[in-house]
Amino acid sequence: MSALSDKPVRLYDTTLRDGTQGEGFQLSLLDKLRIAERLDAFGIDYIEGGWPGSNPKDVEFFQEAKKLKLSHAKLAAFGSTRRADTPVEQDPQVKLLLDAETPVVTIFGKSWEMQVTEVLRTTPEENRAMIRDTVAYLKQHGREVVYDAEHFFDGYKDSPGHALGSLQAAAEGGADCLVLCDTNGGTLPEEVMEICAIVRARIPQVPVGIHTHNDCELGVANAVAAVRGGAVQVQGTINGYGERTGNCNLTSVIPILQLKMDMEVVPDLTKLRELSYFVDDVSNNPHFARAAFVGRTAFAHKGGMHVNAVQKLARSYEHIVPQAVGNEQNILVSELSGQSNILIKAEQLGIPLDKGSAEAKAVLQKVKELENEGYSFEAAGGSLELLIRRELGRYEKTFDLKEFHTSFRQYRDGHDPVCEATVKLYVGEVPKYTVAEGRGVVNALDKALRGALEPFYPEISEVSLVDYKVRIIDSHDATAAKTRVLIVSTNGEENWGTVGVSENIIEASWIALVDGIDLFLQRHRGV
Amino acid sequence: MSALSDKPVRLYDTTLRDGTQGEGFQLSLLDKLRIAERLDAFGIDYIEGGWPGSNPKDVEFFQEAKKLKLSHAKLAAFGSTRRADTPVEQDPQVKLLLDAETPVVTIFGKSWEMQVTEVLRTTPEENRAMIRDTVAYLKQHGREVVYDAEHFFDGYKDSPGHALGSLQAAAEGGADCLVLCDTNGGTLPEEVMEICAIVRARIPQVPVGIHTHNDCELGVANAVAAVRGGAVQVQGTINGYGERTGNCNLTSVIPILQLKMDMEVVPDLTKLRELSYFVDDVSNNPHFARAAFVGRTAFAHKGGMHVNAVQKLARSYEHIVPQAVGNEQNILVSELSGQSNILIKAEQLGIPLDKGSAEAKAVLQKVKELENEGYSFEAAGGSLELLIRRELGRYEKTFDLKEFHTSFRQYRDGHDPVCEATVKLYVGEVPKYTVAEGRGVVNALDKALRGALEPFYPEISEVSLVDYKVRIIDSHDATAAKTRVLIVSTNGEENWGTVGVSENIIEASWIALVDGIDLFLQRHRGV
Repeated sequence: MSALSDKPVRLYDTTLRDGTQGEGFQLSLLDKLRIAERLDAFGIDYIEGGWPGSNPKDVEFFQEAKKLKLSHAKLAAFGSTRRADTPVEQDPQVKLLLDAETPVVTIFGKSWEMQVTEVLRTTPEENRAMIRDTVAYLKQHGREVVYDAEHFFDGYKDSPGHALGSLQAAAEGGADCLVLCDTNGGTLPEEVMEICAIVRARIPQVPVGIHTHNDCELGVANAVAAVRGGAVQVQGTINGYGERTGNCNLTSVIPILQLKMDMEVVPDLTKLRELSYFVDDVSNNPHFARAAFVGRTAFAHKGGMHVNAVQKLARSYEHIVPQAVGNEQNILVSELSGQSNILIKAEQLGIPLDKGSAEAKAVLQKVKELENEGYSFEAAGGSLELLIRRELGRYEKTFDLKEFHTSFRQYRDGHDPVCEATVKLYVGEVPKYTVAEGRGVVNALDKALRGALEPFYPEISEVSLVDYKVRIIDSHDATAAKTRVLIVSTNGEENWGTVGVSENIIEASWIALVDGIDLFLQRHRGV
Repeated sequence: MSALSDKPVRLYDTTLRDGTQGEGFQLSLLDKLRIAERLDAFGIDYIEGGWPGSNPKDVEFFQEAKKLKLSHAKLAAFGSTRRADTPVEQDPQVKLLLDAETPVVTIFGKSWEMQVTEVLRTTPEENRAMIRDTVAYLKQHGREVVYDAEHFFDGYKDSPGHALGSLQAAAEGGADCLVLCDTNGGTLPEEVMEICAIVRARIPQVPVGIHTHNDCELGVANAVAAVRGGAVQVQGTINGYGERTGNCNLTSVIPILQLKMDMEVVPDLTKLRELSYFVDDVSNNPHFARAAFVGRTAFAHKGGMHVNAVQKLARSYEHIVPQAVGNEQNILVSELSGQSNILIKAEQLGIPLDKGSAEAKAVLQKVKELENEGYSFEAAGGSLELLIRRELGRYEKTFDLKEFHTSFRQYRDGHDPVCEATVKLYVGEVPKYTVAEGRGVVNALDKALRGALEPFYPEISEVSLVDYKVRIIDSHDATAAKTRVLIVSTNGEENWGTVGVSENIIEASWIALVDGIDLFLQRHRGV
């Protein structure tokens, strides 16, 4: 048993099931297994892996998941109650739930009378029997049974007796937890708290959980309200992925419980941001910069005055210590910046600037000019460092570009496309003219540029590209709009971001590519 | 006076001021003027235009804003109290507030004792005098004065007497509204409600407002809690833009007040989604698909079972009627889809498919295959229509591509870059070989393709590109990763989205370009 077996609130993650109902959130079998391992390591108590009855990928997941060595979390298979008028032992969907061989099975049933009669098209009595029978059957087979009361709040507001009756049926069947679901996400926090408290009073023998959605931007608030109302299990997803506007965002609820409500729910909260990024990366989703707690800008300070105050006293504009969730203070450089931002950034880069100095003003002026052209240095510290170096004379030219050319030819006779780049440059007085093929134009350019420079600067073989991002800055003008390219390079120890902007994606990529290599050379030569 | 002059809650928008403190949210002077007009037309009560003391763009804004013909909203200039130990009539920042000539001036002052002594470095007595003097001075000059009590909740929790004393000073000066600010965004809803109620009881003669931030993903919940606690003014920004994690999202609070709490705060809520998109477009920000109420997926249904239920009874999975906020139901096509999704989409496209038919299964199979390759049809209804047409034999080939080629040459001697594309194709038996220059490779390709096709299909001159978006699907593999290109084409009446995926951005663009023109030709020929 874990040291946290007496947690005041248990965390139930449904990223792998309800999360994948969200647009753009798709996971392969391998992705799901990797995420499950991470959730376990982070201290999540229950991991809902999928619905074996809904698709073959989920059946396969539970087979493979048996090989996972989970240290703490229990796996849950998700499904529904038996069908109307079918004995539970003959229901194939219920059989698949047992076949998943998980310690926990979560089943959902109907709480809303309208849904029973109009969607399910059966009677309230049969609905209660479906719930009671299925829970009891799963209990007989040794499972911990979580009962998800779908549409509980809407159902309760329509007909409290019917809604409570459906919960009673689950309790009679022996359910281990009754989870109240705000399936449509339309309930307000006060109602959630009140209704949770009523359920606790009416069915005190079974613990209550909460499952909320973000349709009113209140998913997190509703989960917190339920905990105030007595809920001891919180369901949600990492980064709030899920159908429509998403599920309750565990990435926000967890630090609220742990830091604001003094409930120890995970052993090491400093891994939170890492987990959030991991799920984004594995699912190939862009990170939401404004995300609470874990976002890139969650502790970013842009207004000059705030930057000043944060320097004096971090608590002034930070509600928690960023490191508590694995995040960090981030001073943004932008048109609103006072000089403070530039000075701090320069200091972080190891190139201190004096406040009010001509150099500091010149850098600020240059940043503003480039930002007007569409540049953004907020994620491109490498390009900013080069800019500061140039203004301070801490820069030595490494080569002179004369010309580059890219060519792409696509055939329709089965021949592979041919993508080629040439680079013509001088290192000192020595001309160099190279050509390379690549899988894409930027890849070809990168190779041709390295081919030209490596004889002079063999150290650049240490450097490689790890990320390449394209953003259309003004998409109204279609293909002639400006493009911003952000590249992340690494030497295996450090990463640095560089940026290029142009009407042309190839030129924008070129600018960012060259900066990425150039910065490495400047640092390496100790200029 | 507006018909809504007796609103139960007034809306105070600070998109143009606090919003622009957010990363990536920059507005030109023209942008600010356009947004102000839209906010007014939508029924916002107060529009905070900027801080004249912080930058020249804001001074200019207030000069230009005098020419706006606002029908309902009052403009507010934002600033701070006078400095310590400076008579208010000699404070240059306060003078700039009067120079803005707005009917409303909003000033912020310190509530938190720690901030007074450690950031401001003055005494609590002088702090109260600064607040009282400044409010009184602005009142003498005929302004409606809103007092923003910065860090009120943190200040109250540290020292209630000090915090309430600072509000009392504003009340003594004659403030028209006392706005309690959760500046760091760290307060929980229950605390907000409780503290608001205490302030209402202690200073009953002055109305209370609320200003929250989203650092705990509770910005909206905290504003709602404050309204429950007696607040009658809600401050926030459109789409929640703002420093760090952003401000209270008015786009969510407004429909909650109007639809869930029966408070009529705007005359026509169906314009909400339009306003949200307008602010995104003007500020060149991507739309957040999962946004509550207004997001593209806010009423999207992906899981096959939900799609089925929504068909039977929309209330099953929709907490409000999407049209109430100007949104619509959106059935997503994806790997989780049952056939229902495809059938509904086909019907929307005017090509009905029979459930369970071989054609429906073939389309579903093809969609799943392409999605595995990285395609996404959720915003590319045009490509999906072509796919369905092909499976149903409602497609006639319009041309045969043989080859295309693009070339980009960048000089460093001042010569403009040259970007060229060639296209080699057959229309029936007739060969066509064209070349064009463009501002970028995709622009050049578009021109060369049109050059080849227009002699045969002159109607394509009606079609133009209106949007071009690039997404790197797997950014781990740097420049060799797959690229998804989404193009939106229009004939002036209708828009359609098409998609292309390839390791190569040029090929991906080509696929989407061709689909965009091909779909138009299919429809035009009535196949």
